[in-house]
Amino acid sequence: MTRPMDIRHHEADLEHAYQEVDREAFDAEADRLHEECGVFGVFAHPDAAALTALGLHALQHRGQEAAGIVSFDGQRFHSERRIGLVGDNFSRREVIERLPGDNAIGHTRYSTTGGNILRNVQPLFAELETGGFAACHNGNLTNGLTLRRRLIADGAIYQATSDTEVILHLVARSRRNRFSDRFIDALSQIEGGYAFVGMTNKKLIGARDPLGIRPLVIGELDGKYILTSETVALDIIGARFVREVANGEVVIIDEKGIESIKPFPPRQKRPCIFEYVYFARPDSIVDGKNVYGLRKQIGSNLAAEAGVEADVVVPVPDSGVPAAIGYAQASGIPYELGIIRNHYVGRTFIQPTQSVRELGVRMKHSANKAVIEGKRLILVDDSIVRGTTSRKIVKMMRDAGAREVHFRIASPPIKFPDYYGIDMPDQDKLLAAKMSIEEMKDYLGVDSLAFISVDGLYRALGETGRNAALPQYTDHYFTGDYPTTITDLIGEGAKQLSLLAEAS
Amino acid sequence: MTRPMDIRHHEADLEHAYQEVDREAFDAEADRLHEECGVFGVFAHPDAAALTALGLHALQHRGQEAAGIVSFDGQRFHSERRIGLVGDNFSRREVIERLPGDNAIGHTRYSTTGGNILRNVQPLFAELETGGFAACHNGNLTNGLTLRRRLIADGAIYQATSDTEVILHLVARSRRNRFSDRFIDALSQIEGGYAFVGMTNKKLIGARDPLGIRPLVIGELDGKYILTSETVALDIIGARFVREVANGEVVIIDEKGIESIKPFPPRQKRPCIFEYVYFARPDSIVDGKNVYGLRKQIGSNLAAEAGVEADVVVPVPDSGVPAAIGYAQASGIPYELGIIRNHYVGRTFIQPTQSVRELGVRMKHSANKAVIEGKRLILVDDSIVRGTTSRKIVKMMRDAGAREVHFRIASPPIKFPDYYGIDMPDQDKLLAAKMSIEEMKDYLGVDSLAFISVDGLYRALGETGRNAALPQYTDHYFTGDYPTTITDLIGEGAKQLSLLAEAS
Amino acid sequence: MTRPMDIRHHEADLEHAYQEVDREAFDAEADRLHEECGVFGVFAHPDAAALTALGLHALQHRGQEAAGIVSFDGQRFHSERRIGLVGDNFSRREVIERLPGDNAIGHTRYSTTGGNILRNVQPLFAELETGGFAACHNGNLTNGLTLRRRLIADGAIYQATSDTEVILHLVARSRRNRFSDRFIDALSQIEGGYAFVGMTNKKLIGARDPLGIRPLVIGELDGKYILTSETVALDIIGARFVREVANGEVVIIDEKGIESIKPFPPRQKRPCIFEYVYFARPDSIVDGKNVYGLRKQIGSNLAAEAGVEADVVVPVPDSGVPAAIGYAQASGIPYELGIIRNHYVGRTFIQPTQSVRELGVRMKHSANKAVIEGKRLILVDDSIVRGTTSRKIVKMMRDAGAREVHFRIASPPIKFPDYYGIDMPDQDKLLAAKMSIEEMKDYLGVDSLAFISVDGLYRALGETGRNAALPQYTDHYFTGDYPTTITDLIGEGAKQLSLLAEAS
Amino acid sequence: MTRPMDIRHHEADLEHAYQEVDREAFDAEADRLHEECGVFGVFAHPDAAALTALGLHALQHRGQEAAGIVSFDGQRFHSERRIGLVGDNFSRREVIERLPGDNAIGHTRYSTTGGNILRNVQPLFAELETGGFAACHNGNLTNGLTLRRRLIADGAIYQATSDTEVILHLVARSRRNRFSDRFIDALSQIEGGYAFVGMTNKKLIGARDPLGIRPLVIGELDGKYILTSETVALDIIGARFVREVANGEVVIIDEKGIESIKPFPPRQKRPCIFEYVYFARPDSIVDGKNVYGLRKQIGSNLAAEAGVEADVVVPVPDSGVPAAIGYAQASGIPYELGIIRNHYVGRTFIQPTQSVRELGVRMKHSANKAVIEGKRLILVDDSIVRGTTSRKIVKMMRDAGAREVHFRIASPPIKFPDYYGIDMPDQDKLLAAKMSIEEMKDYLGVDSLAFISVDGLYRALGETGRNAALPQYTDHYFTGDYPTTITDLIGEGAKQLSLLAEAS
Repeated sequence: MTRPMDIRHHEADLEHAYQEVDREAFDAEADRLHEECGVFGVFAHPDAAALTALGLHALQHRGQEAAGIVSFDGQRFHSERRIGLVGDNFSRREVIERLPGDNAIGHTRYSTTGGNILRNVQPLFAELETGGFAACHNGNLTNGLTLRRRLIADGAIYQATSDTEVILHLVARSRRNRFSDRFIDALSQIEGGYAFVGMTNKKLIGARDPLGIRPLVIGELDGKYILTSETVALDIIGARFVREVANGEVVIIDEKGIESIKPFPPRQKRPCIFEYVYFARPDSIVDGKNVYGLRKQIGSNLAAEAGVEADVVVPVPDSGVPAAIGYAQASGIPYELGIIRNHYVGRTFIQPTQSVRELGVRMKHSANKAVIEGKRLILVDDSIVRGTTSRKIVKMMRDAGAREVHFRIASPPIKFPDYYGIDMPDQDKLLAAKMSIEEMKDYLGVDSLAFISVDGLYRALGETGRNAALPQYTDHYFTGDYPTTITDLIGEGAKQLSLLAEAS
Repeated sequence: MTRPMDIRHHEADLEHAYQEVDREAFDAEADRLHEECGVFGVFAHPDAAALTALGLHALQHRGQEAAGIVSFDGQRFHSERRIGLVGDNFSRREVIERLPGDNAIGHTRYSTTGGNILRNVQPLFAELETGGFAACHNGNLTNGLTLRRRLIADGAIYQATSDTEVILHLVARSRRNRFSDRFIDALSQIEGGYAFVGMTNKKLIGARDPLGIRPLVIGELDGKYILTSETVALDIIGARFVREVANGEVVIIDEKGIESIKPFPPRQKRPCIFEYVYFARPDSIVDGKNVYGLRKQIGSNLAAEAGVEADVVVPVPDSGVPAAIGYAQASGIPYELGIIRNHYVGRTFIQPTQSVRELGVRMKHSANKAVIEGKRLILVDDSIVRGTTSRKIVKMMRDAGAREVHFRIASPPIKFPDYYGIDMPDQDKLLAAKMSIEEMKDYLGVDSLAFISVDGLYRALGETGRNAALPQYTDHYFTGDYPTTITDLIGEGAKQLSLLAEAS
Repeated sequence: MTRPMDIRHHEADLEHAYQEVDREAFDAEADRLHEECGVFGVFAHPDAAALTALGLHALQHRGQEAAGIVSFDGQRFHSERRIGLVGDNFSRREVIERLPGDNAIGHTRYSTTGGNILRNVQPLFAELETGGFAACHNGNLTNGLTLRRRLIADGAIYQATSDTEVILHLVARSRRNRFSDRFIDALSQIEGGYAFVGMTNKKLIGARDPLGIRPLVIGELDGKYILTSETVALDIIGARFVREVANGEVVIIDEKGIESIKPFPPRQKRPCIFEYVYFARPDSIVDGKNVYGLRKQIGSNLAAEAGVEADVVVPVPDSGVPAAIGYAQASGIPYELGIIRNHYVGRTFIQPTQSVRELGVRMKHSANKAVIEGKRLILVDDSIVRGTTSRKIVKMMRDAGAREVHFRIASPPIKFPDYYGIDMPDQDKLLAAKMSIEEMKDYLGVDSLAFISVDGLYRALGETGRNAALPQYTDHYFTGDYPTTITDLIGEGAKQLSLLAEAS
Repeated sequence: MTRPMDIRHHEADLEHAYQEVDREAFDAEADRLHEECGVFGVFAHPDAAALTALGLHALQHRGQEAAGIVSFDGQRFHSERRIGLVGDNFSRREVIERLPGDNAIGHTRYSTTGGNILRNVQPLFAELETGGFAACHNGNLTNGLTLRRRLIADGAIYQATSDTEVILHLVARSRRNRFSDRFIDALSQIEGGYAFVGMTNKKLIGARDPLGIRPLVIGELDGKYILTSETVALDIIGARFVREVANGEVVIIDEKGIESIKPFPPRQKRPCIFEYVYFARPDSIVDGKNVYGLRKQIGSNLAAEAGVEADVVVPVPDSGVPAAIGYAQASGIPYELGIIRNHYVGRTFIQPTQSVRELGVRMKHSANKAVIEGKRLILVDDSIVRGTTSRKIVKMMRDAGAREVHFRIASPPIKFPDYYGIDMPDQDKLLAAKMSIEEMKDYLGVDSLAFISVDGLYRALGETGRNAALPQYTDHYFTGDYPTTITDLIGEGAKQLSLLAEAS
């Protein structure tokens, strides 16, 4: 049997990265969902690499572990890939000067599949018979492992472990002649959720999966086209939003403009609802909707669905802020900063000794006691994942003298794993997969606990409710209703996927 | 003539630091005030160094450039000093293990006087005839340069350039026998604003300047005493707040408890009002007052003093948030997140090319257009320093479609330099020192501009107004009314002080 | 047309490396030949990785730019690859502990083809259908570029740029079933000079090119087999020399012992004569001959061929030492250290200012004036490449007062490029390719100049002379007589090879 | 009681240094003597810093742990100090450009007193009432600790732990007016062996201890004066040797030329004989004598004193080479390279696992078996310190098949500790302090063992023998005859000195 990941690379740059990321020790990060990536590409602009760096900086919330940019100067491709933040690695002039050319693509990532090492940082590059090809994507292939096995059996060699490399191999091996035909040939073999950005020596290419699970938008600056994950990456460079790439659409940008190809049978789109609830920046416009406004509306709906008498509405910063504002406005209960967030904590503060480890959550959050003491609180957060951080925050509120704590959650209970690019704990770590609402209430130590209903969430997004026959959004983490077959799970898959996940 | 700073050290660790701090390029940081330091000390606790690291982490907002901890294990002193954040340098177990012992003091700094090099990172250490002595402080001596010259003339050798070293020399040269007498002897020679924490092989020592300009509090954990700048450093480790160190008080902590000495003639205290408005963390309790509540009250008073019809109250994050909440609650105008802050920017994002430099402020802030477009805004910030960032933010609001922008500032106009430990631009860079309110309004491009009045600020702090005869707070930056003589400014001083400041 | 190297990677670790290697500035290194690599592999020994590190350290003279080790622990492969010296990167226990297992292979390299970046550091690894496969080699394929083009046309994706990756692809794509058949299938397609060491999850594999151009020996320690480039790598770990791998032989080592396969038609061996003259460490035994003894014999023959009256024999350290000792013993003229070498120079001393750059050679060598002044010198070196260093050394001798300088070279004039793994300047930089002996004498500024004759060299190696019909050694750099066709040079090859060489 | 070293600094740069220096593990380095320092200074030359870097590079054999340069540009002093080699830290243009000015002094060090941290790297700098003063020295004060205690009692604060700081304090506290009077005032209080180089904003100053124990020479380049430890630092920059600084002489160099002051009663000079035997580079001229020639002469005398029938003379490289050449020439027995040294080992190769640790000496030296097998060897080394390395080398010779090993040592037995700047193991670690010649012979496993006699050594230096009444050289390590009182040893001294030495 083929073992997909029987090598462990410990490259020089990795060592440092490892020291910093001790997730067990730094509980607060482990108790979050993580988006896999943000992508960006620009064609024919003289500041291509600098714009890409700025765009990736605006997408930093989608992945903080590593970033890369590849540029093309008309003759050669140039690549810079680094572990760490965009702002720490792509801010100096000399780095941008090593990325000459008018075309560039870039990627910022949180590692889900593929260990956190330089080899895996995107964009990846391949020299094809038709010329160079740089590529990156946000998302996850649900038949990536199956394809990987098939390609290895056929003599392909993998250096990295990301799905992007699978796509490179499929393009390289296609028997079609034109690059765009090869690319579509490759797309026709993959399944899952993805927003893809690639670049040859002549074109910038984008593609979004048939259901539009992962986001991808088109922008324009000085008459030049841009592809990126969220509108905030357009805003930072002063670019104009043109439109979303449609679900199942391939866009090919070159000197002549944008060519749109829809190679697959038309389907209703079904974007990941977590982009709205959780991942997108509040100032992003997703599918025509302002994310901050949506989250306020969720908070407002939550107040209607699960109102309670209280003295103050307190957000869990920063993720719970918009919903808390919405809740406060709808309920008339004052919005107050009962929890102060320490923004200097980064990801690196590991409690240095066992005896002070219990202080845990205080590294990042502290109670603003004067606001809390003797009060009945409505605590608002965007979600509950493992529940460990929530429980500590509730305890912190109690320690600060809260008289009552009513916990309101701006998403439905998360019960099912994701296979489309969201980094989530194993299902048996998800609190809502293990406990009833009542049990969670006791575990968290709150006086009451309520989640927004699935229909309430859909209403906040402008629907009249969830259409069970043909749901408008991808929402399996709440409902278990997966939008595609998960090919890699069939047969020995489940075990293999986790083997892949633990690879370093 | 003695030239105080005729050496430039470029030590190895410095190079890196230089790359990161290009203030001209990173306008947003240059347009802020900066506190010099935070201090922390703990006596007789088995987790002394770990508690100090946590305490310094909670004080990180008081200085992000460097940090140091010295511990004493009963036999030897151990020192770790680093350029960078507490969380990045003092988070690993092996670092804490190199700081054994039950007593420790620590310091986090923003460099005002003394270049940003490892030699200058505190705590400093001196071997005295009576044994070792480690020391650090927050503040600035207004006769530091005068003393430095006098000591050099008397054969003293300086290695670093901070005021702390002046104090070490004074203690070392005192002809008194007991350490506490030597220390008081030294204090009697210095002038200015300071909160001092020191440690010998037997005692932990704290001292606050005669007017109590800089803050210092006493805490207790497991029956052991702690000295630190703000109560948040107690909260993070679960320690109890005992009391403030009084203005002019020296506290000496040893196995027998706390000894309080008041060596100087009693004076009315006069703490720096900027601690309330600007420096202290919102959840700190300063002089019995919750800082978040005070700032909300300032916002509330501002609404009363300078109300205006509008659609939304928008804070400049994060500094303007509490005052904006206060303003919104008092005025009944909805509080909305019209500006989103990118928390990943750190201090390191230098715009990589000239052509994208104009994007400036967007690295850190972005407009939440959906909230702003077509609206009349009340924009609330805590202060205006140079005004360059404010101007860009206003322009960003206009670009996002704001119909009107009314700018409200939660502090009076800043017109005069500080000599007590606040890092401020030169007076000719302070917007309010150069322009009238009307001129500032035009410069910033707002429809109206108002600052809280000095009396309005005092009222928010619980006074009936400013007592001009004997002001309750240090407020010279607004009023020009300095609480002490600035000895170093007499004679050749002014020029010398700036010479010192440019030293690296 | 496919462009083989149209991407430039600037990975994080590379930057540092670049700073260090400014060859134009550091003339002495540029005026040397460089061996491409040293290889090492050990099977079934509990200290596999540690032994490999020690072996590579003993082979450090064969390549100082980077090193890597891959181990196999029965389940997984583990890889460590670093830019820099073995002793600086593989000396710490924690590094060795990250390389668990009883099987390991390692590689130390000087970069010829393939830029000096981490991706190119060997061993490389591929996941084949039959399991993992790690591989490295010393040498160069003379049809590597041709194969690379063919494989790309067939959909192969390259991540690195070394010939080793070509071999991996050939093995991966072979349609044979057994691994050894696949490997021989791959070997049958490659041409050039190589000593190959690879490892699967079951076997250690070695192979030497059909002419045995590059060296490979078998050793044994505690009953376990070792493959490596030179016997010195056996000596350092106390291993016993078993035999050389024969030219054209494949050896497969597993639990059952060594299997020897000779898949190609038998040919007379023809090892690279530069291994004896130049590359191998003096204490190595190559083809049964002690290298130090051979070099002394060359010096002795040189004294016979080109004797001259003089006062002292002075070696150019360290490369000229054995020949100088041989010359001195044969001629009876005293051997003296007239040149002192500074061993601290490393590769990193770049003359810091233009005005002191002329001092050049003195960074590494200095004249021992007391030995030289007023004397007639016989200066002995192993070779002349560009001649720039030789010229400076001669001038240094003159400046130190040498009355006469007679230069004797222990190899014939180097006139022709190498394609089998030796890093050499372009032909138009080779002094002997451009000048007659007389012209060189004048250029170097010596009183007389003589090189060992080709036959004299062969006699030192125990032959009666060179067999022109069927030469016993590869010696094209002296004679222009290449042992194989250089496939990559046919057609567009010559240009392509240099394109490859300048890639970074 | 004052404890001189009750702080342990672990600064950022140190960590790295610690990893590299594990002396117990790297036996070969621990079994060497180490010189404390090399010094260099140049006045009024436009390339001052670059010349200083080159000079320090030539003095690298005198100390490899750290180096520093201070320059003066007419207005300000500039300092660069680094852990590591000169070539690794002072080779880049940007470093030299940070050291502008026509005057510079520099220092390379091996740490004896004062831990290996950046604070202790020289030159040190002090701001005196008369202006800036940078200073460094080679040597050791035998009353340094006594002075340190006295100065601390008088209120002086120490930041570093080197003797140079003691001198700075004495100069700073002198009540004389002119700088040169202050400096002589300071010198009159110190005892020991030292070669001092300092620089004010007007002058370059040199001083050598009253007996001339440590070396200091004057050179000239382009009409500008240079002070440095050895003539090799003049040779590398093409400077002319002018003369030695006399014992007890102070030289003051300024625009007007050299002023020579001899402030102390004249005494016969008594330089450290180990400079000739051990420390100076072979091409140095010390006291008019070529060091290589002296060492050859010692070898020659050794052949006369302790001749033996044998087949080959084999040097222990590199230290034993000149004496071995002398021995071979005198005896007529062929000189052969029986031991090959691996120059890549640096100081950093720590045997990675216990099981391969016994390989020990082979990291640095390997037996050239072909030369040794079946032979009777005369093995020549410059000294025996602990004997551990010698023993391993002898065993290596036996393992390689030597029939007889006769060990000849080019210095007398080392039996007594040094207090003048040589880093030596404790006396109980010195092999010759513990064993008779016969016992050493057995311990080392040789067939015969002989050391040069003290008189034989003096004869090699041109004397008729040692003048016991008034010895011509400092030679206490052989004879126990110390040239000065060791003030720090009186009373509690001995213990304190070692306490100081182990401090880090």
